[in-house]
Formats: sequence, C-alpha cells, structure tokens
Amino acid sequence: MAQVFNFSSGPAMLPADVLKQAQQELCDWRGLGTSVMEVSHRGKAFIQVAEEAEQDLRDLLNIPSSYKVLFCHGGGRGQFSAVPLNILGGRTTADYVDAGYWAASAIKEAKKYCTPNVIDARITVDGRRAVRAMSEWTLSADAAYLHYCPNETIDGVAINETPNFSPEVVVAADFSSTILSAPLDVTRFGVIYAGAQKNIGPAGLSIVIVREDLLGKAHASCPSILDYSVLNDNGSMFNTPPTFAWYLSGLVFKWLKQQGGLAAMDSVNQQKAALLYEVIDNSDFYRNDVAPANRSRMNVPFQLADSALDALFLEESFSAGLHALKGHRVVGGMRASIYNAMPLEGVRALTEFMVDFERRRG
Amino acid sequence: MAQVFNFSSGPAMLPADVLKQAQQELCDWRGLGTSVMEVSHRGKAFIQVAEEAEQDLRDLLNIPSSYKVLFCHGGGRGQFSAVPLNILGGRTTADYVDAGYWAASAIKEAKKYCTPNVIDARITVDGRRAVRAMSEWTLSADAAYLHYCPNETIDGVAINETPNFSPEVVVAADFSSTILSAPLDVTRFGVIYAGAQKNIGPAGLSIVIVREDLLGKAHASCPSILDYSVLNDNGSMFNTPPTFAWYLSGLVFKWLKQQGGLAAMDSVNQQKAALLYEVIDNSDFYRNDVAPANRSRMNVPFQLADSALDALFLEESFSAGLHALKGHRVVGGMRASIYNAMPLEGVRALTEFMVDFERRRG
Repeated sequence: MAQVFNFSSGPAMLPADVLKQAQQELCDWRGLGTSVMEVSHRGKAFIQVAEEAEQDLRDLLNIPSSYKVLFCHGGGRGQFSAVPLNILGGRTTADYVDAGYWAASAIKEAKKYCTPNVIDARITVDGRRAVRAMSEWTLSADAAYLHYCPNETIDGVAINETPNFSPEVVVAADFSSTILSAPLDVTRFGVIYAGAQKNIGPAGLSIVIVREDLLGKAHASCPSILDYSVLNDNGSMFNTPPTFAWYLSGLVFKWLKQQGGLAAMDSVNQQKAALLYEVIDNSDFYRNDVAPANRSRMNVPFQLADSALDALFLEESFSAGLHALKGHRVVGGMRASIYNAMPLEGVRALTEFMVDFERRRG
Repeated sequence: MAQVFNFSSGPAMLPADVLKQAQQELCDWRGLGTSVMEVSHRGKAFIQVAEEAEQDLRDLLNIPSSYKVLFCHGGGRGQFSAVPLNILGGRTTADYVDAGYWAASAIKEAKKYCTPNVIDARITVDGRRAVRAMSEWTLSADAAYLHYCPNETIDGVAINETPNFSPEVVVAADFSSTILSAPLDVTRFGVIYAGAQKNIGPAGLSIVIVREDLLGKAHASCPSILDYSVLNDNGSMFNTPPTFAWYLSGLVFKWLKQQGGLAAMDSVNQQKAALLYEVIDNSDFYRNDVAPANRSRMNVPFQLADSALDALFLEESFSAGLHALKGHRVVGGMRASIYNAMPLEGVRALTEFMVDFERRRG
C-alpha cells in the first residue's frame, strides 16, 4: 500500500524502523523463543533492556546523576496526581500556570491535594492566542512548586522560554508532547514528566525525571504506584512495569541516537514546523490563530476559512495517506501533530496536499 | 528453534496464535498502514477494538449488565490502592483476609486509607500450608468490604471456595492470577480485579469488574486514573488508555472463545495441574508443601529434596526449552506457572523432564 503519514496527536506515529524491529522479534526475542512481553521484568534479559533504556535517555537528555529516572504506569494524567502527592511535602499550595487545556486539567486534579495559586497566562497578542512571558508570572511565596505545561497539544500553544527562576523555585513541567523533540536543560527543573504516547512509545507508560532531593516527601495517602520514592527504591519495579512499552521506548531512544540525538531532531522539527506554518501563513484559505512566538512545533492546529469544506478536506487527505488530521473537538478544524517520528517528507506531503486542495477548492 | 515453554509467573506466556496475529499486523493494522499502537484511542477503529474486548470478556465471564467493566492503568498493586479509595465510602475499616504474600501486600497498602480488620487465614494442615475455610472468617460489622486473594502466585496457595456471605457483604477479590482460568460467578462479588500480565495480556493494564451501585463513592483524594466512576463515565478513556495492551487482551479473549470458553479452559487447567502435582506427589525427589485442598492450579511451587541440585535443574530445564522455572526468592526452589496460555503439552514436557532428571540425578 501507499506510504501513510499519521498525524495523530497521541497515541502517535512511531519510527517505522522501530516498529519493524519490534515486529521482527515479537515472537522470538533475542533467540529466547519467547516474546519480550512474556519474560519476567526481573530476569536478566529484561533488566538489561530497562537499564539500557534509562542510560540512553540519560545520554539523550544529558541528565545529571543527581536526577532519578522513573518508568511509571499511567500517562500524563497520572502525573497530575503524582506531582502534588509527591512534591507538596506538607505545603498547602503550589503555583500552577494556566496556558491551555492540559495545564487547566492539571490544575483541576491538583485541587484534590492543595489550593493551587493559578497564574492565568492566557493572553491575546494582535488578536492571536499567546502566553504571558515567564517574567510576568507572579509566584506565591509559600508554593511548594511551580507547574506548567510547555506545549499544549490541543491548543497548539507552546511556552518556549527556559525557566530561569531563583534556585529555590521547584519547577515541575508536563513535557508529554515535547520531550526529546529538542535539547533540554534538565537542571532548570525539579520534576519533568511525560506520557509516552507522543514522543516516546506506546500508551500506558510515563517517564519522570526528578531531582533526588525532592524524593521522600510523598503524602501518606499516595498510592504506591505513583510514589516516586517507592518507584526509585525499586528501580521502577515495585510492581510489574509495563514491560513492552518500556522495551519499545528503549528502541525509540536508540533510534534517536542513530538520528544524531536531540540537536539533530531539533533541526528537523524546526524545518517541519516552518514548512507547515509557512503554507498556512501564505494563504487566506488556511488559518492558525496562535501568535508566532507561542506556536507549537509539535501540534499545528489550523482552520479552513470555509469550515463547510472540513469534511471534504479530511476525506481527501485520508485518501492521500494523510491520516488523523481532524482537530480536537474543543478547537475544531484540523490539527497536524508532527512529533519526532513524523519525517520531513510527511510534512511535505501534507503541505503539497494543502496547496493542491486550496487550488482545487479555494 | 525448538519449542519453548515459558513458565514465568508474570509477565507470562501468551497464546502463540495471539502473538502471531499481533506480529502479522503490527506495522499495518486493518489495512490502515499504521500500527494499532499508533492510532487514537478515540478513533472509530480503536473504539471497535475496545468495545469488542469488553463484550467478549462479558460473554466469557457471563457478566451481568449491573456490573461495569473498566480497563485501567497499572496492575494489581494499583488496585490495592484503588479498592479502598473507591469502596470505603467514608467507612474506616474493611475486612482483609491474609493467606499469602499478595493478600498481605494489599493489606499494607490498605493501611494508608483505613484500619483493616486482618483475618489471619494461614493455617497448617498435616504439616502443610493451608487456608482457613470461609465459614471461619470472622467479619467485622462495620467493614465496608471484605478483600481476599483467591490465588497466591508466590505461595502456590489457592482459595477455591466461592464466597457465599450475606448479601450486604461486599466482596472484593484480586483475581490477577486466576481470572479466565475457570468459570466464575461474578454475582458473588462487588469488585473483581486483575492485573493483565498473567491470564489476560501484557503488563500495564488491569481490568476491574465492579457492581454498579458501588460507583460514585470515591474518596476526594483518589487520583483520577484510579477513580472507578471517572473511568466508567468515560468508557475507560478519561485519559489515554494502554491501547496496545487493551488490543492484545481483546485478541486473548477471542482466542479463549475459540478454545471453547472458560469451561473448556477449566478442564484443560485441571488436567495440567493434576499431571504436575501427580509427578511431584509420586516422588520423594520433589516436594510441594501446600495442602491438597489449597493447591494452586495456576502456580505450582516445588522443591527438590536436595536443594544443591536446584541450579543444575534450572540449567538443564532451560536447555530443554522449559523456561523461567526458578521459584520466587521468598519460597525458593522451583515454580511452574501454568496459566491458560500454557498448553497441556508444555506441562507434559515439564513432567517428562522432571522424571528424567530424577532418574539421572536422584
């Protein structure tokens, strides 16, 4: 069949080479005559997978040894509970920046555990959606941490600044949709977390990178599967981890290294986003409502000037092998998610289709 | 390579036919040109998978419509927290039967949320480990529910009685290692849960079957990913579910139907267990320390009379394609986990090896 490019926001496209390897060894992994899914997480073979995955992730993100890496059950939403349960440490408030759907969802969950100080960062610049600069975020003195989401998958809004607050501010950030898409200065954060199903691997796994000194403060009612200290003390194997997702994530990390690491990914991701936004901006037929400085490089929502053409656009793009372009119901229109696994040629195919569709229907 | 039989306690062997199908369609699922791992959980294709899996599970276990089926993140240990968080409903105690390692682990976690009334059911019969009969369990009047684990994977101890308490007793049971191995009268339970990685599918998924009237009582601090009502209201898709594990579990359910359903599985499982225990009991070289009435049909621990031969037994059995027979460190010796996916011929191969090993080394 013709090449398919899958623009799903998550679960999302995985590198074709990774899937091919997983397929090849699915029934007979490492000559063991069993699937990687069938072996004990405590056996030598899987432990090697687990350790290599962590080391490769550390190499990619240049994670200092003072940070622990945890492989957890659940996705980003699990961490919406885990962050307050682990990091509040007896305090009753934390600063939560609201810049989109996911940030707001994290705030809603945090209200179960504290009284968040909500920093409304949603602003409008030249009639377009934007985010207040970090220098204008008013932090509270008694907050246990500051939480924000650098990339909003639904809104297509990104916070591209790197946090540079005073050292006592513990920054916790939801990198579910941007992790590994560009280099990242881990030392600016107390907690980095990410659901796997966008830039890492299959759904059902989340990865937490947490500064060592923040461990050991979990609330007494924190479920063990979300307790960072319990997970850390047991090498993320207090309970049976999602082994297949861990294995596949490890393959993705190796693939990223083969691509040249995060600087190389960053460069391709910039090209992909520039190409797509250029086509949108050069047209009156397509529209993106986000201010340039806050445009997401991972999730590009766009509207057709005539929304009556939406259904036809989706039908024809699907037929052209461009899948999952329907926008989230909250925003409507279209959305192209272009994570690491989406090659430049996929974005090129999309933009060529868009130009052609406009020519025919505009 | 030679046929391998994998006796791992979990993650465990999956049906060979299921793995083959998953392999065949891993990179191009349903002609979509993408993997099932890469598609949105909210798309038509995956929703069909999700709904069929639930319906097949309902058919297999004959689950009444008054029970909800939830597909959750995490495994059994996640449910150790979820059960008290969802079912206590403001009460401060619950009855917890202790008959082995996992029951005790559930009690430890429950202490975060209530003061469990622990019913010590560990007894000795004729010098062998056994479990006190249900009629001798002393329930407390103010307990929100009664929790027990019908099969202890590490101890190889099973509670084979079907609960028959007065209707107001809400029975919650950890069926992680026995679900789908035999027919089950769901109506005797308030909550049935099971981590997937033994009799259902890959690790990272747990399935909860909960009586409808028990919903809506979650504690205010219950993380959303463990909140039965939230999960139920959103078709287990409040957050991105572990889609690949859900899909693969669905394939296992279809495979079980093809095998003739749970009565047929029960029959084969009885044969498998009988064959293995017979070889153990007919020998002074092997030993199982559990009283016959409480012997597990899923996890068969056995000791060699001369533990100095343990390493050799493991080495030679592995070479013979009989994998993962090492017992849990708590119990030592050997353990053969013989869940649904283990064919009778696998147990036959094991028993033939055991007889031969005894002949050569006994």
